[in-house]
Amino acid sequence: MSLDQTRLPQRRREDVRLRGFSSRASVEEATAWLDAQGERLSTEVIAASEAAGRILAGPIQAVGNVPAAGSAGEDGYAIRSRETIGAGMYNPLRFALQAADSALRPATAALVAAGAPLPMGADAVLPFSAGQADGAYLEVTGAVAEGVGVEDEGQEVRAGTTPIATGRALRAEDLGLLASLGLERVPVTRRPRVRLVIAGPKGVGRGDADGAMLEALVARDGGIVEAVVRGAGAREAIAAAVAGAGADVILVAGRTGTGPDDEAPLALAGVGDLAFHGVALRPGGSTGMGLAGAVPVVLLPGAPLACLCAYELFGGRLIRRLGGRDPRLPHTVQEVEVGSKIVSAVGLVEVCLVRRVGARAEPVGSAEQAGLGSLARADGFVLVPASLEGHAPGARVTVYLYE
Amino acid sequence: MSLDQTRLPQRRREDVRLRGFSSRASVEEATAWLDAQGERLSTEVIAASEAAGRILAGPIQAVGNVPAAGSAGEDGYAIRSRETIGAGMYNPLRFALQAADSALRPATAALVAAGAPLPMGADAVLPFSAGQADGAYLEVTGAVAEGVGVEDEGQEVRAGTTPIATGRALRAEDLGLLASLGLERVPVTRRPRVRLVIAGPKGVGRGDADGAMLEALVARDGGIVEAVVRGAGAREAIAAAVAGAGADVILVAGRTGTGPDDEAPLALAGVGDLAFHGVALRPGGSTGMGLAGAVPVVLLPGAPLACLCAYELFGGRLIRRLGGRDPRLPHTVQEVEVGSKIVSAVGLVEVCLVRRVGARAEPVGSAEQAGLGSLARADGFVLVPASLEGHAPGARVTVYLYE
Repeated sequence: MSLDQTRLPQRRREDVRLRGFSSRASVEEATAWLDAQGERLSTEVIAASEAAGRILAGPIQAVGNVPAAGSAGEDGYAIRSRETIGAGMYNPLRFALQAADSALRPATAALVAAGAPLPMGADAVLPFSAGQADGAYLEVTGAVAEGVGVEDEGQEVRAGTTPIATGRALRAEDLGLLASLGLERVPVTRRPRVRLVIAGPKGVGRGDADGAMLEALVARDGGIVEAVVRGAGAREAIAAAVAGAGADVILVAGRTGTGPDDEAPLALAGVGDLAFHGVALRPGGSTGMGLAGAVPVVLLPGAPLACLCAYELFGGRLIRRLGGRDPRLPHTVQEVEVGSKIVSAVGLVEVCLVRRVGARAEPVGSAEQAGLGSLARADGFVLVPASLEGHAPGARVTVYLYE
Repeated sequence: MSLDQTRLPQRRREDVRLRGFSSRASVEEATAWLDAQGERLSTEVIAASEAAGRILAGPIQAVGNVPAAGSAGEDGYAIRSRETIGAGMYNPLRFALQAADSALRPATAALVAAGAPLPMGADAVLPFSAGQADGAYLEVTGAVAEGVGVEDEGQEVRAGTTPIATGRALRAEDLGLLASLGLERVPVTRRPRVRLVIAGPKGVGRGDADGAMLEALVARDGGIVEAVVRGAGAREAIAAAVAGAGADVILVAGRTGTGPDDEAPLALAGVGDLAFHGVALRPGGSTGMGLAGAVPVVLLPGAPLACLCAYELFGGRLIRRLGGRDPRLPHTVQEVEVGSKIVSAVGLVEVCLVRRVGARAEPVGSAEQAGLGSLARADGFVLVPASLEGHAPGARVTVYLYE
């Protein structure tokens, strides 16, 4: 990261319309600016049963041991292990049977169910396969070692410890542990409230591709779509949608380019602060960023693939970070070998769609021409750094997978 | 897979209580039985905007081309490329400007926005950086090649093609494509309705760990929890909960073991068909399966870690398959090297919890003793086949990751 903060203000209110971008921020500069905006959101306390996927925001402490006392780990007979020494099929040993709710008497065993406390004196649970009950007696036909079938007090979780690390996305399995601990409510990071302002499409026949896509992506990244403002094409409409209170993040899709009706950057500059406009990214070069009051606003291109790329690198990153998640791309990654040459332009970070053919990554369309149709055929994408012209066949690259 | 169907009926109604399992189905047999139950669920048609993550159940067809006509891929001036040959900073060429809604006249250019149809005759879009408008004229200071900045008709999606493969989980990006195609409703596989019958816990201080965990896991696997029946410990209560109509899959958690109050297998045998009880899996050996009418029922152990393991291998597999998903474990996998020895018993498939230490997998607890506390410390698990005693340090194994 080499962020030259002094360069950014020059691009601040530049009107690129009918002229094109004379200079663009690097992806690194844009990322650094974004990472300096806003802090991890505050903590809220919610029902543990609703907390799957949420980010644990504070330490949870085990009040007691789990298990609370030494208990049976499986069904069987609580017993003193040393009394079973020598037992076998040809040397059955005879034990009296007693109830499990009082201390174990000598040469005696007690039926216990998994999870039940062990009677005092017992140090093992004999499995049913090693004993045969006969009325008030048990014939033991196999020895059992000390500790077999027993869960020691605090074996799973010790009182006072914090069994789940703060900052982790709670897993389904963690909800089981929280229930075991008797914790009905947990502190989690508030979900970012995201306003979507759909300022495009300018073209014909596009439908609301950006809105449909962004709603699902925001949910994936742990955000809540607070409002979707559609048809906000004019400068006043964009400005009004951006200026309203209630959102932690605002994403404007469309009207960010160099055409005469690309009003989004000017709308943001009018009601807030346009930090910069134009990023050395393809697709996605017309991305802009700024602040409306203290709320970060990301201006995403209207062309759907460019919108997606700018969301993944910038908008999604912001949402993930504010929500306490890992800000990096959330995709599963795979190291693979390049098949046909991946072509890219020096000076731009390029998002190259690829599909996997056997163990290789093959480009799908080109960064200049690809769109949603290419995207549907792709398995993932490769990020080509600005310093490279692409990747030669046989090169090892990281593929970010779409599923 | 070697499924000896003739062996299963012998285990059918075996009462293992106070005796233990004399034989168990192999994990392969259990999987094969499960895979023979039920078919992929029927198709429903839902709003495309709600379809993220759902399984596309039938072909969707592009009615028209996308784009519908040749259109501008970026903002600029629609132009005849051959007329720009020779243009440069020191040889600006002069074009008249006209509106984009009629055919392009010779030596003329038209301002277009990305996504707008190209005027007839134009074959390229000149970027703003290569032209300077001056009143009714445009000075072109750079040549542009044919096709630059142009999206050809049908370039993204051709009419009549099926751009998204049937059977795929729809991605956020696919929703953008569906919107582009003007498809407002899509056919998807119905989500399996899952009934959870919480028959345990038998022990003390467990809370409803299984219920909390299973609800989140069913959602992860694309199912809908149709009902949660709690406190169904007695045979009659389990039987009533299993016999009721309305579910595609029934999961009973708890009361599957060898203790005197392990009523779940007998309850299922009473109202339906207990196919078998006891699987060579650890944790999870007391798993059972059968049918209530035509509805598959999986009996999961009550101990939370055993419940989880049996869910992942059996219950979840069934839900994923009925819902049209890949039935295999949904976890991200990673090939890693074993650190300390992983110990396992021959004859059982063992689920060994591991955490990653550097590039290595280190066991967490043991299969016999581990529980939810160990689980919270684990990054994933290794499945040790029944034929192996474990894995030596340095062996390469597949880790199924929890996140």
